[in-house]
Amino acid sequence: MLTTLLPLALLGLAAAQAPAPSPSTPVAADWRPIPDDELLVMTLAGNRQVVIRLAPAAAPVHVANIRALARARWWDGTSVYRVHDNYVTQWGDADGEKPLPRGVVANPPPEYGMRQPPLAASLTHPDPYARRAGFTADGWPVASGGWRNEGTEAWLPHCYGMVGVGRDLAPSTGSGAELYTVIGHAPRHLDRNIALVGRVVEGMEFLSALPRGTGNLGFYGTEAERTPILSVRLARDLPAAERPRFQYRAADNPRFAAYVQERENRQPPFFTIPAGGADICNVAPQVRRQP
Amino acid sequence: MLTTLLPLALLGLAAAQAPAPSPSTPVAADWRPIPDDELLVMTLAGNRQVVIRLAPAAAPVHVANIRALARARWWDGTSVYRVHDNYVTQWGDADGEKPLPRGVVANPPPEYGMRQPPLAASLTHPDPYARRAGFTADGWPVASGGWRNEGTEAWLPHCYGMVGVGRDLAPSTGSGAELYTVIGHAPRHLDRNIALVGRVVEGMEFLSALPRGTGNLGFYGTEAERTPILSVRLARDLPAAERPRFQYRAADNPRFAAYVQERENRQPPFFTIPAGGADICNVAPQVRRQP
Repeated sequence: MLTTLLPLALLGLAAAQAPAPSPSTPVAADWRPIPDDELLVMTLAGNRQVVIRLAPAAAPVHVANIRALARARWWDGTSVYRVHDNYVTQWGDADGEKPLPRGVVANPPPEYGMRQPPLAASLTHPDPYARRAGFTADGWPVASGGWRNEGTEAWLPHCYGMVGVGRDLAPSTGSGAELYTVIGHAPRHLDRNIALVGRVVEGMEFLSALPRGTGNLGFYGTEAERTPILSVRLARDLPAAERPRFQYRAADNPRFAAYVQERENRQPPFFTIPAGGADICNVAPQVRRQP
Repeated sequence: MLTTLLPLALLGLAAAQAPAPSPSTPVAADWRPIPDDELLVMTLAGNRQVVIRLAPAAAPVHVANIRALARARWWDGTSVYRVHDNYVTQWGDADGEKPLPRGVVANPPPEYGMRQPPLAASLTHPDPYARRAGFTADGWPVASGGWRNEGTEAWLPHCYGMVGVGRDLAPSTGSGAELYTVIGHAPRHLDRNIALVGRVVEGMEFLSALPRGTGNLGFYGTEAERTPILSVRLARDLPAAERPRFQYRAADNPRFAAYVQERENRQPPFFTIPAGGADICNVAPQVRRQP
């Protein structure tokens, strides 16, 4: 009994079980295709596939590098070499000695912010990192207006599953060869200090459930602990039969606004006190396989 | 090179590497013992030990139940039966049929909030869930002042590693027999809707890195996937030789205030844009083994 009801309850899904569609239920037109040059497919040993949606608008030079690295098959034979609990899982060349392919910019400009895009949906409250937060029409979370920095600068927030570019100390911005994804509470202090280039849209559990590194800062102490990366490809470069097709849920419609509203005000029968607000990282952008 | 510097950089530890102690460095007196009836020791198969600090002030009846369940060895032979990615790991009696020991209150009062305790250290900004956040003198994070509910009510926030009481639909509050810990981004919408009873202070990786459940809502589809719980004991009830001794870092001192300040304003050489604020779940309460 408990274990049947509990999870529904814990997830606040009870309402979503109602027969009639709620105002937040997307219509077919709300689901739009993700271009196949914006999907990165990473295959780990053991036939574990991770799919990443790239964000070229947020970090064009870094994303161009990542496309070039994938096309050069640079990641094939590299590994997942760091898993730091409640922080990041990181992959690439563990020794940091593999030369970059021609055409990859070794140290791109700091693509940490972008011009404020129109927000298709906004959250009710500011958070400790930004005066405003919401979503772009194409379903990316956006934060804008730093507390110590005025202006309309906007940026992608470091939510769970977001993919960022490992870098050395500033002014290094990292090439995009060493990537990480957030596997714990959003380290929002990294916002505007590191280039975010995308988000894991499938297979996150293959990165979040890996054994934590016992070495300093979550690095694996031995090569044997690393997870081999068999290949990383742009969906566009895969044979049509193997090419995954994904859709994102557009935010420029009243259904998405209602979805945000619902996340900010969870309802009975499970919730007795709706928060009246939500953290941008608790309003998950929605992505699905093309039906 | 990259992999040596990167993690320090990513963690913003560069400053902490400086030779001179910073204003945030605790003195010996800042470390205070955690009473051995406020430490719960859970041993999983494979000699994996998880230590939980209990919060009797926040949920006295639920914590009394948990102490009674441990003393009755109720959890021995139960299991970790649910691991939901970016949400919770849950344990107890997977079938929900094991009778509770005498003396355990089956449905305690809703201990979801508490009278506003004096905050020994406060954060600069509100968050989408609370008008104020900070720490009690004994190192517990506290949020207070809901956006839709005025008043001074305060509560423990659902940060990574916090331990809560699984429950059925309201008005059930759960007995404390089914527990969960947060393994992803803080599900703060659960604040004031579920009783929080403590926080994992050691061995979190044994709960966060478990394979995700492939069943509905992260439940394991088969009994074989579950992680057996060998025993759960209060530290007080363990033989002196096996009794772990922990200390918490007190927050009622200028060193802790400086620590909060540092977390809100990460500095070069890694950080180029300090946020000017921090999420309560990004200012980790500090606990250590007694030296």
